[in-house]
Amino acid sequence: MSQLNDLPQAAGVALTLEAALGEMAAVVGAAHVLADAATRERYARSTASRAVRPLALVRPADAGEVARVVAIAGRARLAVYPISTGKNWGYGDACAVGAGQVILDLSRMNRIIHVDPELAYAVIEPGVTQRQLSDYLRAQRLPLWADCTGAGPDTSYIGNIMERGFGHSPYGNRLQHVAGMQVVLASGELLETGFGHYRQARAAHLFPYGVGPFLDGLFTQSNMGIVTRLGIWLMPQAECVNHFLCSVPRHADIAPVVDALRPLRLDGTLRSILHIGNDMRVFSGAGAFPREAAPQGACLPEALRARMRAQAGIGAWTVSGALYGSHAQVAAARTALRKALRGTAGRPAFVSQRSLRAGALAARLLGETGPGRRLRAKVALGESLFAMNRGVPDGRFLAGAYWRRRGGVPASFPANANPAQDNCGLLWVSPVLPLRGADMLAVYDLAQSSFDQYGFDLFATFSMINERAVGGVLRVVYDKDDPNEAARARACHDEVFDNMFEAGYIPYRVGNHAMGRLDPQGDSYWRTVGAIKAALDPAGTLAPGRYQPGVAAVFM
Amino acid sequence: MSQLNDLPQAAGVALTLEAALGEMAAVVGAAHVLADAATRERYARSTASRAVRPLALVRPADAGEVARVVAIAGRARLAVYPISTGKNWGYGDACAVGAGQVILDLSRMNRIIHVDPELAYAVIEPGVTQRQLSDYLRAQRLPLWADCTGAGPDTSYIGNIMERGFGHSPYGNRLQHVAGMQVVLASGELLETGFGHYRQARAAHLFPYGVGPFLDGLFTQSNMGIVTRLGIWLMPQAECVNHFLCSVPRHADIAPVVDALRPLRLDGTLRSILHIGNDMRVFSGAGAFPREAAPQGACLPEALRARMRAQAGIGAWTVSGALYGSHAQVAAARTALRKALRGTAGRPAFVSQRSLRAGALAARLLGETGPGRRLRAKVALGESLFAMNRGVPDGRFLAGAYWRRRGGVPASFPANANPAQDNCGLLWVSPVLPLRGADMLAVYDLAQSSFDQYGFDLFATFSMINERAVGGVLRVVYDKDDPNEAARARACHDEVFDNMFEAGYIPYRVGNHAMGRLDPQGDSYWRTVGAIKAALDPAGTLAPGRYQPGVAAVFM
Repeated sequence: MSQLNDLPQAAGVALTLEAALGEMAAVVGAAHVLADAATRERYARSTASRAVRPLALVRPADAGEVARVVAIAGRARLAVYPISTGKNWGYGDACAVGAGQVILDLSRMNRIIHVDPELAYAVIEPGVTQRQLSDYLRAQRLPLWADCTGAGPDTSYIGNIMERGFGHSPYGNRLQHVAGMQVVLASGELLETGFGHYRQARAAHLFPYGVGPFLDGLFTQSNMGIVTRLGIWLMPQAECVNHFLCSVPRHADIAPVVDALRPLRLDGTLRSILHIGNDMRVFSGAGAFPREAAPQGACLPEALRARMRAQAGIGAWTVSGALYGSHAQVAAARTALRKALRGTAGRPAFVSQRSLRAGALAARLLGETGPGRRLRAKVALGESLFAMNRGVPDGRFLAGAYWRRRGGVPASFPANANPAQDNCGLLWVSPVLPLRGADMLAVYDLAQSSFDQYGFDLFATFSMINERAVGGVLRVVYDKDDPNEAARARACHDEVFDNMFEAGYIPYRVGNHAMGRLDPQGDSYWRTVGAIKAALDPAGTLAPGRYQPGVAAVFM
Repeated sequence: MSQLNDLPQAAGVALTLEAALGEMAAVVGAAHVLADAATRERYARSTASRAVRPLALVRPADAGEVARVVAIAGRARLAVYPISTGKNWGYGDACAVGAGQVILDLSRMNRIIHVDPELAYAVIEPGVTQRQLSDYLRAQRLPLWADCTGAGPDTSYIGNIMERGFGHSPYGNRLQHVAGMQVVLASGELLETGFGHYRQARAAHLFPYGVGPFLDGLFTQSNMGIVTRLGIWLMPQAECVNHFLCSVPRHADIAPVVDALRPLRLDGTLRSILHIGNDMRVFSGAGAFPREAAPQGACLPEALRARMRAQAGIGAWTVSGALYGSHAQVAAARTALRKALRGTAGRPAFVSQRSLRAGALAARLLGETGPGRRLRAKVALGESLFAMNRGVPDGRFLAGAYWRRRGGVPASFPANANPAQDNCGLLWVSPVLPLRGADMLAVYDLAQSSFDQYGFDLFATFSMINERAVGGVLRVVYDKDDPNEAARARACHDEVFDNMFEAGYIPYRVGNHAMGRLDPQGDSYWRTVGAIKAALDPAGTLAPGRYQPGVAAVFM
């Protein structure tokens, strides 16, 4: 298992693992090559109940070291699997797709190389986290915001972009806000995409396409190279931001709301990525599963669920999004939104800095009463959403991963939250659907029947990832300490995945455990990807199995 | 020259050209394989003074025929060069990069496969023109607009997108509004990108990335495959459109205007692609070079140029763009624009449907007076711009190509305008620069010195192709019937190209005659592109030399 034996023989004799790690230590420093049992154990931990133990961990300091480590791995016939900060929660965390690979941990490469305040972009390395960039921009008093996700402040921008993740702001379609990648190829060569390979280029991080074939997409959701740097566009601070929330009482009410919002997304009134979550998404943000109320199963009893909805003041679904612009532009958008939702069950409530201040004051006046506590919780949530809209990440949105964890959310939460190390059980299915109410209901109902059968509550978020498509994020949250529940969770995930796939709702992103399911037909797209991979990485050194269904299936 | 001899031998014996064309005729029908001298001559015509004669012309009817023709070419060791409608004016027109290739003319493939009015997209073939899609949408009374360029109504959408062209509307960054390509590979295999390779996928044309490596970019500005179909997003008709024009008197006045507009482009107030043209761009839209006034040279005398500016009521530079949205949104944008330009030499004038009607009425009242004629010309220009903003292409913007043509603009213009067949002389240099006034002046001044030296007027447009970059389009317009002037034009082009390149202003797109200049250093980007090409098209069947500098240099 320690070396890949089924690959074509390269010239010369392969190094032993020990010799290869020794050579890598000479490149990165002995302190940054770890092959002890505890480290390998720690990096094997995953919210999937599937420990994928690496051979070793190597932590390079820069792209040059990455290139030299990759060259050594090539000679040694070892596979290396790059991670940025290893926080790909629920999709594989810090694990490789298959065991026996060397994890290339890029978290030491955390330099913010350059920020251009005038043209609003940053050049960053893979270790740069949401918190780090946000703090940097504020410390430098730059009037720029970076898009945030709810995955927590310590997650990597580049890691998320490589997975084609999305955030919440007008820059939430992250891949559209990237220009100029630096990539280490399996050959050890350093590639600059866009115009960057011309050293003198002045628009290297301003115009992604460059001249000639546009390669950036090739390095996302792939194992074609290791992205060691990229240009990420930043949002100029808006004069005015309003968050809006809109809840509908019954399940079926959400379809007309989606259809009413579609024209506003299409015409640019709603430029940010809207998220629509069900009640479970809201509950799981505020605490863990109340085991005492349902000791037998993993589901909330329906009566309790209804009571919790009433207590939280929400309905079956809640739409959450933000408006950006001048005061006049935001006012015009508010008017358009109110008008569009007329005739649906949704009434938008707008959260502004002013309303948050008023809410906080009222909560203080109400004190330790029930309404006071509830209002305080609402204001705190509003403040977190509002901060995220304005480029300040918040760890609280990670709470959902802890829903079924024994002991619930740790006392220190959200500081140092790490669902993989904290033994949370979490799997996602992420189908993409047309931006239509009917499709949303169809996807939800299809998932619901499997979740019911396997005895899990369905956590669902639907995000308007662009103007025409919705990314569904369906979460199986389970108790990892219960082997029976873990097995059911995996079976539930697989059934939902396959049902969605067959129904034409293909995932935008998959977990390591599911990559083997992506090419049931052996189709020409995957053959083409395979041909490109063979050309760029003939020995299969880089991340075998990552978005490489044929190889991944062997690892399953 | 008729067959490529320097390629690795494929198995079996190569077909003769005659036998290969015979086999192709069996696929597409004998009427659609043309190898007569007149056809080859016609397809060799180019606005560059560089006739590139094809071996033959083959006109397939669908992707299946394309695949079979490519397979025959592969066996015959012939190169095929796909064109959509062959109207790549100034960049190679209908010509291959090198002589001796078979032109694969896709203009018969002109089906609008599907339009989805709700999710606002169309699925089209390469032969679909701007006029055709525009007419179709209006005939079907669909409230959708397609982005337009000024290259004329009979140009292909797919052809332009493959060159990464840009238009004028909020959808002007065209590659960002494409989802799901069908591609014929050199192997003859049919590839669907995005989700489309899963037959059951419901978001094939709604979410470009699909799952796994995102390949679309690889097929633009490349010779990796032949795109035979794609999904193009359409713009929902806006309640309100205002065109705005803003002229500044002196050359240097434009820099502060650019810097004042940048924040509005960055913050989303200006969602469409703004174009900034110099006075020559305006003059050349209204008529040909006045030879009688300057019989000796190709330049306008400065006094005449100043008089023409005064007559046209313009200054050195004119900014042109459009605002889209609800009435309230457009009003807010107008206010923001006026405010931003305060303190610069620019005062925006807004053109609305109402102002155009008023202008037309006033022009009628003024009758055949001087002011009446001038107003009528302005109203006609405004109407054309306004129509283009609203998805109706206009041939008049092609007039500039005829500036130095003997005989000027043909009487039938703009009907059937074809600068290549009409013997226009036209070459472009298209550097990308940071969206900054100083860079715009630097690029202009750098170009001006070469244009002065070679005795040409500099036609310049600077387009805000995204929120951070400007695409400069510098035009050498020359008299193709004057061999001396044609040689000077080519020398001028080459010098400007090289100077821009060295100064870090790399082109976003290049003409066939310049593709050999793209890789002066033999850098890793082009080596990577070469490795992918070798994997996908080992025999070099598809469009050799197209964005393939090493091969193109051999053809020069």
